[in-house]
Amino acid sequence: QGILERLDAGEIVIGDGGFVFALEKRGYVKAGPWTPEATVEHPEAVRQLHREFLRAGSNVLQTFTFYASEDKLENRGNYVAEKITCQKVNEAACDIAREVANEGDALVAGGVSQTPSYLSCKDKAEVKAVFRKQLDVFMKKNVDFLIAEYFEHVEEAVWAVEVLKESGKPVAATMCIGPEGDMHGVTPGQCAVQLVKAGASIVGVNCHFDPDISLETVKLMKEGLQAAKLKAHLMSQPLAFHTPDCGKQGFIDLPEFPFGLEPRIVTRWDVQKYARKAYDLGIRYIGGCCGFEPYHIRAIAEELGPERGFLPEASEKHGSWGNSLSMHTKPWVRARARKEYWENLKPASGRPYCPSMSKPDGWGVTKGARELMQQKEATSEQQLKELFQKQKF
Amino acid sequence: QGILERLDAGEIVIGDGGFVFALEKRGYVKAGPWTPEATVEHPEAVRQLHREFLRAGSNVLQTFTFYASEDKLENRGNYVAEKITCQKVNEAACDIAREVANEGDALVAGGVSQTPSYLSCKDKAEVKAVFRKQLDVFMKKNVDFLIAEYFEHVEEAVWAVEVLKESGKPVAATMCIGPEGDMHGVTPGQCAVQLVKAGASIVGVNCHFDPDISLETVKLMKEGLQAAKLKAHLMSQPLAFHTPDCGKQGFIDLPEFPFGLEPRIVTRWDVQKYARKAYDLGIRYIGGCCGFEPYHIRAIAEELGPERGFLPEASEKHGSWGNSLSMHTKPWVRARARKEYWENLKPASGRPYCPSMSKPDGWGVTKGARELMQQKEATSEQQLKELFQKQKF
Amino acid sequence: QGILERLDAGEIVIGDGGFVFALEKRGYVKAGPWTPEATVEHPEAVRQLHREFLRAGSNVLQTFTFYASEDKLENRGNYVAEKITCQKVNEAACDIAREVANEGDALVAGGVSQTPSYLSCKDKAEVKAVFRKQLDVFMKKNVDFLIAEYFEHVEEAVWAVEVLKESGKPVAATMCIGPEGDMHGVTPGQCAVQLVKAGASIVGVNCHFDPDISLETVKLMKEGLQAAKLKAHLMSQPLAFHTPDCGKQGFIDLPEFPFGLEPRIVTRWDVQKYARKAYDLGIRYIGGCCGFEPYHIRAIAEELGPERGFLPEASEKHGSWGNSLSMHTKPWVRARARKEYWENLKPASGRPYCPSMSKPDGWGVTKGARELMQQKEATSEQQLKELFQKQKF
Amino acid sequence: QGILERLDAGEIVIGDGGFVFALEKRGYVKAGPWTPEATVEHPEAVRQLHREFLRAGSNVLQTFTFYASEDKLENRGNYVAEKITCQKVNEAACDIAREVANEGDALVAGGVSQTPSYLSCKDKAEVKAVFRKQLDVFMKKNVDFLIAEYFEHVEEAVWAVEVLKESGKPVAATMCIGPEGDMHGVTPGQCAVQLVKAGASIVGVNCHFDPDISLETVKLMKEGLQAAKLKAHLMSQPLAFHTPDCGKQGFIDLPEFPFGLEPRIVTRWDVQKYARKAYDLGIRYIGGCCGFEPYHIRAIAEELGPERGFLPEASEKHGSWGNSLSMHTKPWVRARARKEYWENLKPASGRPYCPSMSKPDGWGVTKGARELMQQKEATSEQQLKELFQKQKF
Repeated sequence: QGILERLDAGEIVIGDGGFVFALEKRGYVKAGPWTPEATVEHPEAVRQLHREFLRAGSNVLQTFTFYASEDKLENRGNYVAEKITCQKVNEAACDIAREVANEGDALVAGGVSQTPSYLSCKDKAEVKAVFRKQLDVFMKKNVDFLIAEYFEHVEEAVWAVEVLKESGKPVAATMCIGPEGDMHGVTPGQCAVQLVKAGASIVGVNCHFDPDISLETVKLMKEGLQAAKLKAHLMSQPLAFHTPDCGKQGFIDLPEFPFGLEPRIVTRWDVQKYARKAYDLGIRYIGGCCGFEPYHIRAIAEELGPERGFLPEASEKHGSWGNSLSMHTKPWVRARARKEYWENLKPASGRPYCPSMSKPDGWGVTKGARELMQQKEATSEQQLKELFQKQKF
Repeated sequence: QGILERLDAGEIVIGDGGFVFALEKRGYVKAGPWTPEATVEHPEAVRQLHREFLRAGSNVLQTFTFYASEDKLENRGNYVAEKITCQKVNEAACDIAREVANEGDALVAGGVSQTPSYLSCKDKAEVKAVFRKQLDVFMKKNVDFLIAEYFEHVEEAVWAVEVLKESGKPVAATMCIGPEGDMHGVTPGQCAVQLVKAGASIVGVNCHFDPDISLETVKLMKEGLQAAKLKAHLMSQPLAFHTPDCGKQGFIDLPEFPFGLEPRIVTRWDVQKYARKAYDLGIRYIGGCCGFEPYHIRAIAEELGPERGFLPEASEKHGSWGNSLSMHTKPWVRARARKEYWENLKPASGRPYCPSMSKPDGWGVTKGARELMQQKEATSEQQLKELFQKQKF
Repeated sequence: QGILERLDAGEIVIGDGGFVFALEKRGYVKAGPWTPEATVEHPEAVRQLHREFLRAGSNVLQTFTFYASEDKLENRGNYVAEKITCQKVNEAACDIAREVANEGDALVAGGVSQTPSYLSCKDKAEVKAVFRKQLDVFMKKNVDFLIAEYFEHVEEAVWAVEVLKESGKPVAATMCIGPEGDMHGVTPGQCAVQLVKAGASIVGVNCHFDPDISLETVKLMKEGLQAAKLKAHLMSQPLAFHTPDCGKQGFIDLPEFPFGLEPRIVTRWDVQKYARKAYDLGIRYIGGCCGFEPYHIRAIAEELGPERGFLPEASEKHGSWGNSLSMHTKPWVRARARKEYWENLKPASGRPYCPSMSKPDGWGVTKGARELMQQKEATSEQQLKELFQKQKF
Repeated sequence: QGILERLDAGEIVIGDGGFVFALEKRGYVKAGPWTPEATVEHPEAVRQLHREFLRAGSNVLQTFTFYASEDKLENRGNYVAEKITCQKVNEAACDIAREVANEGDALVAGGVSQTPSYLSCKDKAEVKAVFRKQLDVFMKKNVDFLIAEYFEHVEEAVWAVEVLKESGKPVAATMCIGPEGDMHGVTPGQCAVQLVKAGASIVGVNCHFDPDISLETVKLMKEGLQAAKLKAHLMSQPLAFHTPDCGKQGFIDLPEFPFGLEPRIVTRWDVQKYARKAYDLGIRYIGGCCGFEPYHIRAIAEELGPERGFLPEASEKHGSWGNSLSMHTKPWVRARARKEYWENLKPASGRPYCPSMSKPDGWGVTKGARELMQQKEATSEQQLKELFQKQKF
């Protein structure tokens, strides 16, 4: 059954977690570029991560094609050997995802994301051509449906949806925005309306914010659609990091991004609360983005086990709400084998010299950044600022 | 070259990370029992994790035989299908480790750990028989050397070393203790002396405490050996969790164990500091235990790159001290591409409603635990306490 | 010169700090009732506190008549001896304030605050009669101007202003609200408009929220007045406690109120930032409320010293920005004798087992409160809820 | 009855709180010099603070003669007008303390503290002469007993005790040390022994550390005396600041000293725990030092009310364990009117951008300090270090 048949029937669809962060920690993706050449270089590592998400309960395996547009791969060219072409990266991603999907009950979704072409102000036709190149591979490999994800500008997201819709396959679209809306100030509600009008059957958010803020954003999208009398399925794939202190552009601006985010990682219990809250909000496509590891996805599947009537394979190796501790030799550890304990735990950081929140960086705050830039001869702050604004950031 | 040749020549040997925690998050190990039947059930998952550590710089691949003694597997029997015998688990572990070790420059170490037999007061002969059964497999599979690890009682560790020495292969021994010593109050220095006298060529600690506390403990071992005029190589494989608030028995007693430890996870920069400090202390076998993921092991290899003269394979996908951020579009993110930034960052938890330290549980503190126990008819607190003490905990 | 002459001339007027909290810590006011019978019982203690504020730079000494309306004093009757009548409390308060004001350059302001009569739904005439009784004393004692402060309901505040205006003296009015407005949902902007239309020449906020939130509220008041083309002077007298985690009703609902607020106390440097921010916002009557001690008021006077051209008497005993440390024997303490140090310090709590923020109590959250109430026979939760709502809370 | 009669009879004697910190916040003492010329300049302020402590339950009023030795006052000469001689400061202090003591049941104790003469290496005779000059005033004014307090070097404390014993009056002696002992490494136990041998009838600690650390230190003193078979009464007057992160020299080295200590201020409930713990340890002279306000002293008297059989006067204005909240209009505030609530509260700081612990400053850590010093021409770091060491710090 296809994605829309499932959602139309009221089924809960569980997404997968974040590949670039998980594979960075495993040694296959470089932070900064975040490109997916691992599909060609180390297919076994990508395959294994897909398998873990499948076991954990994912009903959708997204092809590992994040930032796999030709312009992005070229832009990051020094990391990609000549023989690893854009086409090869995308094809391999499709093959691996399909191979693992066949091991269980999962759909394969081909994914595109925001492009350097748009950010450097290329025109609509050029940007669409970039998406079309990836779509050609997805059609050849016959993925089950398509996702346009990680867009900061709704204009580009709309272009992506328009291209993907040319295929005739169902299209989902998620933006990496918070309640304040996209980088041009388009509200979440307006974004949702534009995306649905462009052809998306499923809309929502991914990345950049924690589960709470992401759900707040999807709620605004839902309200926007209702006000416009439009119908669409809702989707959320947030970060697995607590980010109450984010500014408008999300976790990128936090001083801890990307190499000091550990103390912010959500627990499985945080994810269970997220899954319940998402469900109660009417979201039926529930997954994760950066930071979501297989056990986080399993937590979604376990929380919604009663509604779905079954548990994922990986729950063989997990007791509900810590009940696998019930045979521990220490009585005080046995006492942790209950829902109330984990639900109410306020976990300590073990870091008494660290604060609990940070001020996000950005223009105006980053004195350190400015000083550093002043040390580089070629680029004055003004030049950088112009460059930056020209790039639509 | 064997482990002792390397260490005797002054080489740095990098260990691997913690299998039970990493594979629990990937869906293959059950918290509570923590047994390694995945070697038989899902060899591809175990193999992949070994590969990631190898790529990250590990010079030793430990067979995934933690808690794989027959008495432990039987004790946790409900999790192990009939056909997954102790022998099969251990054999598969050896085969997988060797297969991956052959892909690079790594040794295979067969490992044994603390047994239920000892804890339930079986005699020396019985306990030794348990170790010998695992040793038989290691000899048949011809591992390169042997490790006795995760012992809370030096008496049992000594018995383990004595058995392993029967093989003629080099033996390393690590205890999961802190500066206060083993569960009977034997100091770290005395533990080290007993282990070396029993035949260990390498001694140190693993698990239960964070890098700082673990190094403090190894320092005490070193001083104990010096006072006794004994020589041995030193080894440390600590947790990848900050535990300044631990009591004598380590992280097991922290309220966050094992499902709420996320905010305590160390960053790669914490690991670089640990590696340097370990090196300066004279430790030459440097690895990790629970919580250490491949990127943490890579951090050891990168910190000690100047001393070793080379970087691990996975450093292809990592810039030293964040330099892969130097091309980021946002200038304030580019400004993070420098050592001083990450070295001094005090990462926020994003959890303003949580404390930074916890009080450990244990007899006397766990009012909640006692109340819970009182609700169970069969086991009074007194009975439990006796049971507990009888078990040598 | 009167209060309006000063403000009209563009002078900065510095208010005083919070009497009930300061005198509670000194042993003269009871938390809970918070009534000011100390003016009769211990005039020397009240006099001394006035003197300290005067020395610290206060230009206005408010009579210590908070909660000194007849209905409040009766309501708290058990704390007030028969001979300490409402009239005596108010008269003594005026006499003490005037005595100290004459020692320097300060005005005396007679103050009224929210009444039990209003909260228990007495009608307008009855409530006004309560205020009038206090006003009679203020007129007899010839205070310089009048303040209606600490109102949660703008309706009652308007009634108070109307009564006070009968005197012909200038009237200031402050509400204890945050950006969400009064308890009936009247916005800060609307509150300000109603108060000015009722006759207030000075409007603003006092109590219930920290400096940042209070300034945000005054800003909304200012915008409301501008939109309505009304003119008034602005005033702020916030808490000296950090309350970023407050709900709509302010610090009363925080679990720490009133006996565990210590870790939230603002530093003198926090106050200097507040004073500057208030000034930049156009506020010219700048003081404090609960938690403000004399040294906090001095910090306002020191921050605005350049604008005012002089420092308060108590600055004899204070070096600007810590410069009195410049002769310390320890060089690292001497190094603290500079503005940049104190401006950037993030002071530690010394409480690693405590969080940095709390969830406010209130209906729906206070399971503990509900349980407690259920133990009292006479008052069911429903009864309490009705009682509570009837009281306009 | 004299101090020794009371203690010998098993009575609990309650000390007073810290004058320099309390009066600094009230505007009468300058941080840095910390000298007590306010006894002459503003006797009413000193008198009022004495009265508040008396009302709060203090049985001893210490003359406000901290740092009132002639060498200290001269050293800080710029703060002391010519006419405010050492003699006048000390005489006024005695007069004020006696005047207030006569209002209740309190003893007057004349106090001396550590001198610049000792720190700049003057000889025994010279240092003793300094103490003797203050003693002359105490004898003339006929104080009830004498206290030598705030000594970092036991040698100087012994000299002080020897001088004070010349008077024939009982002598108490407290050092401002922690468990690591005095600045020359003399252990707390040895310090206690030396002080008792020199003639002190009461020994203990004051200032520099929080209640927990201070009690740990007194415990070591007690054990030292027991081992030496000496008898003395025990005394503790700790800080009212949490300082778990202190180094050997206490709170002076914390980055927050002295103008950012607010988040560390202890609650009244913290003090009740301290009083109970002190009592259980056998300490019978229980008071406070810097940070202790009248309500903190009252908390000691209330906690030990059952043992003493009465409450202090100021308890009229205080309900035991928050019971004055039992009539609050909000049920969730009423729910706070119970011991269990306040005993278990973990108060939040309201400061999510601040850590919970700090690293103390000192040689080797203060890079900032060193840089600052390097900017001063006349004093190289080496010169400063020598100067510093010459000064015995």
